[in-house]
Formats: sequence, C-alpha cells, structure tokens
Amino acid sequence: MALVVQKYGGSSVADAERIKSVARRIAQAKAQGNQVVVVVSAMGKTTDELIKLAGQVSKQPSERELDLLLSTGEIVSCTLLAMALRDMDYKAISLTGAQAGIRTDSTYSRARIQRVDPKRVVEELEKGNIVIVAGFQGLTDEMDITTLGRGGSDTTAVALAASLGAEICQIYTDVEGVYTADPRLVPEAQQLPEIGYEEMLELATYGAKVVHPRAVELGELFNIPILVASSFTDSPGTLIHGGASMEVRNKVRSIAHDLDVAKITVVGVPDRPGIAASIFESLAKANVSVDTIVQNASIDNITDLTFTVAKSQLDRAMDVVKPIAQSIGARECVSDARLGKVSIIGTGMQNTPGYAARMFGTLSEHGINIQLITTSEIRITCIIDEARVKDAVHALHRAFELEIKE
Amino acid sequence: MALVVQKYGGSSVADAERIKSVARRIAQAKAQGNQVVVVVSAMGKTTDELIKLAGQVSKQPSERELDLLLSTGEIVSCTLLAMALRDMDYKAISLTGAQAGIRTDSTYSRARIQRVDPKRVVEELEKGNIVIVAGFQGLTDEMDITTLGRGGSDTTAVALAASLGAEICQIYTDVEGVYTADPRLVPEAQQLPEIGYEEMLELATYGAKVVHPRAVELGELFNIPILVASSFTDSPGTLIHGGASMEVRNKVRSIAHDLDVAKITVVGVPDRPGIAASIFESLAKANVSVDTIVQNASIDNITDLTFTVAKSQLDRAMDVVKPIAQSIGARECVSDARLGKVSIIGTGMQNTPGYAARMFGTLSEHGINIQLITTSEIRITCIIDEARVKDAVHALHRAFELEIKE
Repeated sequence: MALVVQKYGGSSVADAERIKSVARRIAQAKAQGNQVVVVVSAMGKTTDELIKLAGQVSKQPSERELDLLLSTGEIVSCTLLAMALRDMDYKAISLTGAQAGIRTDSTYSRARIQRVDPKRVVEELEKGNIVIVAGFQGLTDEMDITTLGRGGSDTTAVALAASLGAEICQIYTDVEGVYTADPRLVPEAQQLPEIGYEEMLELATYGAKVVHPRAVELGELFNIPILVASSFTDSPGTLIHGGASMEVRNKVRSIAHDLDVAKITVVGVPDRPGIAASIFESLAKANVSVDTIVQNASIDNITDLTFTVAKSQLDRAMDVVKPIAQSIGARECVSDARLGKVSIIGTGMQNTPGYAARMFGTLSEHGINIQLITTSEIRITCIIDEARVKDAVHALHRAFELEIKE
Repeated sequence: MALVVQKYGGSSVADAERIKSVARRIAQAKAQGNQVVVVVSAMGKTTDELIKLAGQVSKQPSERELDLLLSTGEIVSCTLLAMALRDMDYKAISLTGAQAGIRTDSTYSRARIQRVDPKRVVEELEKGNIVIVAGFQGLTDEMDITTLGRGGSDTTAVALAASLGAEICQIYTDVEGVYTADPRLVPEAQQLPEIGYEEMLELATYGAKVVHPRAVELGELFNIPILVASSFTDSPGTLIHGGASMEVRNKVRSIAHDLDVAKITVVGVPDRPGIAASIFESLAKANVSVDTIVQNASIDNITDLTFTVAKSQLDRAMDVVKPIAQSIGARECVSDARLGKVSIIGTGMQNTPGYAARMFGTLSEHGINIQLITTSEIRITCIIDEARVKDAVHALHRAFELEIKE
C-alpha cells in the first residue's frame, strides 16, 4: 500500500461540480489501494475576493490579520472536498494547516515551513481516512495562523509528502505537464515525460508557471518525485525527479519565457566600493525583488549598473533608486518597462560549448536584439524587447529541435 | 479601567461600511478608557451561503466538516473588524475561538462550552490591544473545530465576560432592547430599561429573539450583567441583571409570542407506564425537539397525549410517532401546523393569584380559543390559532397595562 500526496489548485476546485469531479479522482487513487493525503487551494477567485474585502475596510491591512483572513479560503475548499468524498461513501476528513502540523516562522504573508508534525495526519490515515489538508497555511509557535505566499499549496504538498515518506507528490493543475516551451506560444511544443529537479527549478524560476520553484527545491532536498498533471484530463503528466533514468541529457530540455520584466539602468556610476550595496539594500528595504543584475567593466572608473524587476514594481524601484543615484553622483537613471526574458534550459548544457553561440546566433538571425545576458550552469537567459519574445521562443524551439519527439 | 465585552451580530457587520461603523463604536468604548473584548458573528448571510455550498457537494454533510466550514464565517468578520480598527490607529488583534481559548465538547453543530482558557486574550489586552474574537466556535480536546449552534455568539460573549471577570457584556444587535411586547406587533410597546435574568430567560425561551436563552442562563450563573442594545442607534438598551434594584415587581413584564408551533395529539392512548417514554425517546433519537407536553387525566384508562414541535419538524415527528401509536394500540394520531404561542412573563406573578384568570378572560373576550396551557412560576403560556396571535398579544398588552410607562 503506497502513500500518495495529491495537490489540487484553485481552478480545479472552482465550484461544486469541479469539487465533485476532483473527489472522483481522489476516490480512484484510494480505490487503487493507496493511502491518500490531498492538499487543496482556495476555490477559484476566493483569495482575490477576500483581499478586495480587506481593501474595503483598510488602506493597508495588517499582514497578520490578512493571513488569518486568507486562511479561511483553503478551509472552505478542503471541508467541501471532504464532504463530497463522504457523500461517495469514502471515509474522509479535512484538516487545517494547523491541525495537519504545518509549523512555520512568523513572516506573515510569506511564511517558511520550519517543520511538519504530521501526527494527526498519520492517525487519520490509520483510521482509513482520506486526509484533506488546507494548503497555503501554517501555524507559528505562538499559535498564530500564517500563509506561505506564492506557491504555498505546492509547498505544503511536497512538505507533507516529505514528512510522511510518501511515494510521490502529484500536483494536479490546469495544464497537462511540463513542455519544451509554453504550448500556448508554440503549438508544436512537446510534453516532457520527465525532467530533473534542477532543470525544473530553472524552468520554474525563469517563467514556467506550472509548479512553484519552492516546491521543486523542497522535492529535490527530500528526494520526493513530483508528478505535474492535469486535473481535467487523464494525460500522464510530467515526472520531476532526480533519478538516473534521464534519457538524452546532452540537449536543451525546454525554453522558458517571462513577459514581466522591467529594466533600470543607473548611468555613469562612480566605481567605488559600497555603491551597489547602498542601492540594493534600499530596494530590499522597500520590498522590491530584484532579478537580474548586470554591471559592465568600468571605463575611467565610471560604470553603468543595470538590473531588472517585475513591471509592477518599476515605479517603486525608481522612487528608491533616483535619490540614491543623485547622491552618489551618477549621471542619470533610465528605465524600460517593455521587456521580456527568454531562457534555454538543460543539464546537457553543462560543460558543453556551443549552446550560447547557437542561441545568440538564432536571435540575431531573426533580428532580435539582446539587451542583457545572464547564465547559470544549466541555463542561458537573454533579456529582449517584449514584442519579440514570442518570435524568440519559436525560433529557439526550432533551433534546438525541441519539436522532434524523443 | 473597566473590562467590557461587546458582541456584534451578523447584520451589524453585514458589509464593509457597517464593519467600519462598528469599529467606530468599539473605538469609542476604548477611548473611554476601557479594556475591550469584542465577539463577532459572521457577516450577514455568510453562514447561509456556506450551508448552501455544502448542500451542493453533499446530500447530508458531515457535522464535523460543516462546523469547520462554518467557522470560517466568523474568522472573516473578525479579521476585517481588526483591520478596520487598525486603520483607525487603534491597536487591535483578531483571535479565532480556538486561539481565544473557547474549549467545547465534541457535539458538532451544537457544542457546549466546557471551559474558557483566556490566557491569550489577557496577554493581548495587556499589550493594549482591542481583542476581536470569532464567535460561535470553539475547539475540542482533540483539536477539532466545533460550532456552538443557536445563540452561539451570544454565548461566546457571556462566557468570555465570565472568564475574564468583565464588568459587563454588551450585546449589540438590530433591535433597541427588550420590550413589553414585540414592537413590530404592538407599536405602543415600551422598552424595558432593565429586566431580571429569570424573566429574560422565559422571554427568550418563549419567543423573544433579542438574546439567546443560553447566554442569559450563563449570565445568571456567573452574575454577568448583559446589556442588549442597538448597534445602529445610541438608545440606552435594556440591562439584564440580577440586581435588587428591580422596580415594580408585582407586574407582568412582557408578552412573548412565537408563531412556529405545530401540535401532535395521539388520541386514545392506553394509560400504561412506559408509553410516553417510548414516544419521546424515539423523537429524541430522531433529533426532534419537543416543546410543550400535555397529557389529560385518563378516563377508563384511555388518555390523549399532546405535544408541540417546531413546524419544520412536524413531518419528521409524525413519521416517528405514527408507527408507535399503532403499536401501542392508540386510536389515531392527529396534527395541526397552524398554531402559535403567547406568553405573559413576570416575576411579579409568583405566588400572586389573578394573572391566569385575567389572561384567559382577555383571550375569551376576544373570542380566542385556548388549545393548550402550560405554566412556570413566572410565566403562563397559551397555545392558540396562529391567525389570532397578533390579536392576542395586543389584547394582553392592553389588559396588563404594559403601554403605560413605568
């Protein structure tokens, strides 16, 4: 008898009919002889509606209060799912994050899981129950309710799978798996039957929204295989794991892209120690997440410092950077909010020359100008005009022959 | 510095505007130098909507799951209220029933409070916080969430007031206080400035919906004065207490009425021991609450047994009683769903003759037929045709001169 953790996202439980349909999927896993733990997100737009309500009573809602408020969304969906399963004569019980032993730090709105005490979950499994756990939430040592921030329910699922020693963590969502590129952009994109943790981590971080990087990281740390599949079809999905059975490794695995990129360049920065620190510490204090940072080699002790942020944070970032730029004697501060990011990712690129050349060459052939380049061992990312991102993904998909089924 | 517990009902927090208006009332109590604990119900129709949602996924939702589901309603309203207060620069924190230490038995959907461990509430008060507690909910020793059933939030408020040693428990609602009769029926009804626990208990039990009898009982037990007042106006409200300052005691205090009465009569019951027990045990098992029970003196060892139930429970009660009536050899089983109840209540009636005669006489003068009579030491109740309840309340209000201001 295997122990399986399943996770269903908000669109999979958006209304009563979908909840019943998810209940049938869960019942199937149980009927196959598994012990089943299910992590569930809030129904459809519930979280957005609660945030809106908070905005109606407060200009800047307290994060502690907001977390307690938002935590109700997942409780609603998990109780409904448990009821639907019981209505089908399956034994089922719902647990809040607190009851399921998800213990976090006190960083409201983006708490980190510190440990999982799955005692109650184990007890309920031993009683023959399907255990439905409210995702996205946890409990501090002071018995306050926290939420886990982005990717919270995915993270809850993998953390539970790790603490319970589950055989697999299955993440059911509204896409069919991981592809060689976003199939909405590239119709000939191929679904990947499997992918390694590190490749998935780069993909998720650089634009593929299918599973959150936090969950992938946790899966890698505890070596929990993660299946990403659709909750609406029976397609086999993509298995994220660290196994040695990975086939063709000497290859780009997938093209990621991201349209949410804005760039700020501080022009004419005196090249003195501490300048970069003063800029990025101030941005961090203002809660601006900085993505790529590039500084050119200085000429005559004057350099340009460029970095990217999410488009929604551009104004706030400019407000922080402009006075600093002035105080350090930089020439000016310019920004561009119409950028995108395209990345090629694959462990096959490690220590293998030629990938970068082929990527830059392909973009150049299509007249796409590269503004910034960053790389990791298994990834090359180019920041380009947002209007050319679609063309770039298409061209790279063909250039690396990803449309050919392995 | 006094400690005050306030309770606001669902209609008082039905939307963002009303929540802000309640926040201003709470702020006023705090600004007057009090320590303030607030118990709040779910917003408007939230509970009904959650029950509807449960009905869409399950024909008969599990009570445990339903309690956990419904508990989210009060969490939403209490977090929003805390946010609204913080937005006004008051220190405020919301607590779930569990966090506030409301510990109950495991009777889901109608749990009883076993004890209150208000440690966290006291800590937050000491930090200068206004403490907003989710009403209607508690935690079992197994760490499961329960709801308290009818009158749950009133009961939470009085229980907290008792455990904290509060000076007063103020219940704010959509009526201005306790009246000599329902002012919607009797425009000349007078608001009572104060009333004793026992009188209020009879009033609440026999139809006045202003405060739940459970809360009144708890208030009497721990001698907590309860103020019932409007959350929409500044009217002084009615103080429920046990003080000796009660003025005119030799008097009917108020007329209660209830339109939700159905009657079942088992005709021709052989007068043997155990017959009544078999009927009422079966009704209890079927979860039917029986109200008034009347059995006439038997003639030739044959008697009629009559009892009343809520109209919504009549069908279920008949299903239970009919086969039993047949098995014990009763002649027939008849029911009447069009009844109402009218009661006169007042401690002044204790050991004072003449009240019953005046009540029956008044009804008779108005051609109102009395079907059943029950009494307590401070109450006389007549069950009559529902169509005559309004006339009866009017007539009795005049007969006992309740329109005259004390």
